[in-house]
Amino acid sequence: MVEHDAAAHRAFVAHQVARTYNENMRQTIRVSTRQRNELCDITEQVRDTVKDSKIQDGLVHIYVRHATAGIMIQENWDESVQNDVVHLLSKLIPKGVWQHDAQDGNGDSHLKSGLVGPSETVPLVEGRLALGRWQNIFLCEFDGPRDREILITVIKDEN
Amino acid sequence: MVEHDAAAHRAFVAHQVARTYNENMRQTIRVSTRQRNELCDITEQVRDTVKDSKIQDGLVHIYVRHATAGIMIQENWDESVQNDVVHLLSKLIPKGVWQHDAQDGNGDSHLKSGLVGPSETVPLVEGRLALGRWQNIFLCEFDGPRDREILITVIKDEN
Amino acid sequence: MVEHDAAAHRAFVAHQVARTYNENMRQTIRVSTRQRNELCDITEQVRDTVKDSKIQDGLVHIYVRHATAGIMIQENWDESVQNDVVHLLSKLIPKGVWQHDAQDGNGDSHLKSGLVGPSETVPLVEGRLALGRWQNIFLCEFDGPRDREILITVIKDEN
Repeated sequence: MVEHDAAAHRAFVAHQVARTYNENMRQTIRVSTRQRNELCDITEQVRDTVKDSKIQDGLVHIYVRHATAGIMIQENWDESVQNDVVHLLSKLIPKGVWQHDAQDGNGDSHLKSGLVGPSETVPLVEGRLALGRWQNIFLCEFDGPRDREILITVIKDEN
Repeated sequence: MVEHDAAAHRAFVAHQVARTYNENMRQTIRVSTRQRNELCDITEQVRDTVKDSKIQDGLVHIYVRHATAGIMIQENWDESVQNDVVHLLSKLIPKGVWQHDAQDGNGDSHLKSGLVGPSETVPLVEGRLALGRWQNIFLCEFDGPRDREILITVIKDEN
Repeated sequence: MVEHDAAAHRAFVAHQVARTYNENMRQTIRVSTRQRNELCDITEQVRDTVKDSKIQDGLVHIYVRHATAGIMIQENWDESVQNDVVHLLSKLIPKGVWQHDAQDGNGDSHLKSGLVGPSETVPLVEGRLALGRWQNIFLCEFDGPRDREILITVIKDEN
């Protein structure tokens, strides 16, 4: 059952994630999120981008261009860890008690993003992302639902 | 009013930030902080460094060489988010209750630095930092006032 | 006494850390951890890897291939900061209260890893890691004891 649910979830996520080139021909992953706080697995889209680059060895940099979102590497056996991440951050950083809330009401979103950070970098070895067996790449949405843009940069290791 | 105050703040920050080359000709940003805990916007200095490099596409790595400071990407509409970051970290990591305090009295500073991390990496696209509209680059001071040194590395994307 | 203890600890740590090449000839550091939560200094092994690469200038990327571990840059004067990191994370992220615990009982380990992150990137300047005087590189174990694999990538700065 768990595997079935996880597969269904991944299929649904894939449905709302698109890979395109941006105005500068840089590979871009676009995600339409559904909730205020959620994690969205983008590993498959990053893998496809790396394959398109034809680069075999180096580093892959994944960067979200928004101040109320982040990138996290985390397990995706089922949704439990993703839910735990959302609950932990909401407990540590409650909504509605921040100075910035007077501006946009999303002070908590900015703080979560600042702690998680907007990027991760993963080694590329012989054409494959060198993720560990249980490591997946997630967009973290902290002020959704919104459309989010993620830039992928593949740097070649010349050695 | 908010815009005026933010502009005044940025002018003041610019006053205390200098770009130089270090002994190895690596571009360095030097910041003299004013308080024990504060965020200092260094986006303009990073932009100038990138311009000097003449590199058009790749990655820009920003690294602070101190174990009681960090680098965070965060909004700079006004000072509210910066204040919220300082308050959140002081709530999660109170001063004066750590084993390391017996040495230097700055156990909390080390813990904040460890969580925030000493670096961020930003894509470089057609000669410009590919920051999102609301993303700025901050030095986080956790044990000031002090003089801080930030190394900038621009890596060229050959593809 | 403090210096003596720290030296003894470092000798012990060195004993259990090995540098090898993995199946793809990428430099790999292998660490056998001893406790469920601990920090293990791998700075010497990263330095040796960089020396072997013969690269003088660029970036060094340190990546742990596990979803219940992390990489943190932190002081290593003695064990006090390492102990404080373990205590802080256990206070913020207690054991046994997470949805994922129904699967593996290690929900807290995943959450700590997600916050700390699996990698750090350090500038390489004239053949040396440009760490600050008090910055060391640590593997963070959050679900040990286990054998952990860390990939090192050295990217050359062509400029």
